[in-house]
Amino acid sequence: MREIAVVDRIRKLAAQTADTRRLIRGIGDDCAILRPRPKHDLVFTTDFVLERKHFELNSHTPADIGHKALARSLSDLAAMGSEPLFCLVSLAIPASLGERWVDGFYRGLLRLASQYRITLAGGDLARFDHVIVDVMCCGEVPRGKALERSGARPGHLIYVTGELGGSARGLSTRKGMAWKRHLRPEPRIAAGLLLRGLRASSCMDLSDGLALDLHRLCRESGVSAKLSGTVPIARGASLENALYGGEDYELLFTAPPKVKIPGHLGTLPVTEIGEIATGRPGRVTWAGDVLQPKGFDHFT
Amino acid sequence: MREIAVVDRIRKLAAQTADTRRLIRGIGDDCAILRPRPKHDLVFTTDFVLERKHFELNSHTPADIGHKALARSLSDLAAMGSEPLFCLVSLAIPASLGERWVDGFYRGLLRLASQYRITLAGGDLARFDHVIVDVMCCGEVPRGKALERSGARPGHLIYVTGELGGSARGLSTRKGMAWKRHLRPEPRIAAGLLLRGLRASSCMDLSDGLALDLHRLCRESGVSAKLSGTVPIARGASLENALYGGEDYELLFTAPPKVKIPGHLGTLPVTEIGEIATGRPGRVTWAGDVLQPKGFDHFT
Repeated sequence: MREIAVVDRIRKLAAQTADTRRLIRGIGDDCAILRPRPKHDLVFTTDFVLERKHFELNSHTPADIGHKALARSLSDLAAMGSEPLFCLVSLAIPASLGERWVDGFYRGLLRLASQYRITLAGGDLARFDHVIVDVMCCGEVPRGKALERSGARPGHLIYVTGELGGSARGLSTRKGMAWKRHLRPEPRIAAGLLLRGLRASSCMDLSDGLALDLHRLCRESGVSAKLSGTVPIARGASLENALYGGEDYELLFTAPPKVKIPGHLGTLPVTEIGEIATGRPGRVTWAGDVLQPKGFDHFT
Repeated sequence: MREIAVVDRIRKLAAQTADTRRLIRGIGDDCAILRPRPKHDLVFTTDFVLERKHFELNSHTPADIGHKALARSLSDLAAMGSEPLFCLVSLAIPASLGERWVDGFYRGLLRLASQYRITLAGGDLARFDHVIVDVMCCGEVPRGKALERSGARPGHLIYVTGELGGSARGLSTRKGMAWKRHLRPEPRIAAGLLLRGLRASSCMDLSDGLALDLHRLCRESGVSAKLSGTVPIARGASLENALYGGEDYELLFTAPPKVKIPGHLGTLPVTEIGEIATGRPGRVTWAGDVLQPKGFDHFT
């Protein structure tokens, strides 16, 4: 496989699903070119998906890995209440993986891409001892309307979408719905757009567990949080999974009490789990006890 | 080192050099937020810099690696004739590398960033067995004015900036100016902006060697190229280095004969090296003989 040949293949695959809204130039040049829509802000995120850290080659198909790599970044776009526009995909693979693996990877990624109408606009390719993926996603949001982590204020109520701990449970059992959930997380794009419309005061995605991620949200907002002691737990998962397990990719958000948050966003259930308070920024309590900000720390 | 602590450090370092033109939100949220300037397009590129492929830990300081990682992507912005706006940096490092290494890496990267007024707006951090860097850069260009690979037409003249082969020479000798050149490539941002003003018909950066990169430019333009048989060769480098050596990061561009291209862009020399012709797209000849499209192929 030579780089030019592989790029041609990817370009052909990408063209089948590409939606070129606002993209003047995609794969094939030094840079992709975007013509931004007036009165809109753009949001950007990048996420690693690394062999033996986020997946194993013997338990994840190439399509699983492609799906997950894009889902991780799309989940960040969801957290900002933004609409996906395009992505850049950097992929390094060992020489032992051939065309079939590369095709499978891009098929998995592009299937999710076409579902959320995001265009594959470029990236980088390299050979390496291990599979490394880094996906950059760009989304669009009406000017000044992005949901941020920093808007939570004392008195605001805290909510989560869906159920927590399913991905951690799946990782330990490797079977059933929980494992499928771990392999193919669904970014909450539609829920993020609805929350933007409802004027949620802050939002982030749950990638590293509720305890650690809520701590981060509170730090950015300069507030503390009191959790009531009840969270929606995925079937078969433990409370430990729900509080400290990573990769659920649900949305954690806050809203002033006067904002009426429905019980469902589309078909996705929403649960109120606590309240923002004054106090040491980042402090989180669970039914009155301090909750340690531990979880999936990618750096330890 | 915990992730939150490292992010705080990076944020502090980044704030010293940050130029927040158009960036509404940088490090600290799920996404960075950009407010695009009216009547401008945005360009995007991403590039890997991988241990044992693009550098060695025993011969490259962390600052060298940070510099090179950003320079590679900035060079793509230069090729589009764009002005740098912001970058996202994904960094994975082994547990053996501590705070000092991370600081050195970001200092090297941010020194170059402040030179070209590009803001570090976010990224990702992970632990891995090897050092992996992936840098995404975003630049700005007046609407419709980006220089592309696809605009070369038969009769247009072919030019390069600077001298070629220096980086390959440096890699083999590991000493003197050539080695310094290999360690700390300078992206040709100013030259790219001038070429945009001069209305060059196509442009790309030389990252993988003249033979392979000119082949790529010709393929995108649907043309062939005739090189005269003379190229500017860096001191000490061979013709082989100049034709097939990677990582010079000079600009390769074309312009119609009626466009007067000066002998220098700023202080950077410019040399006419051949002419675009009809014929099989991608075909390149050197003094009449076919030049094989070989060079630094990251994928073989």
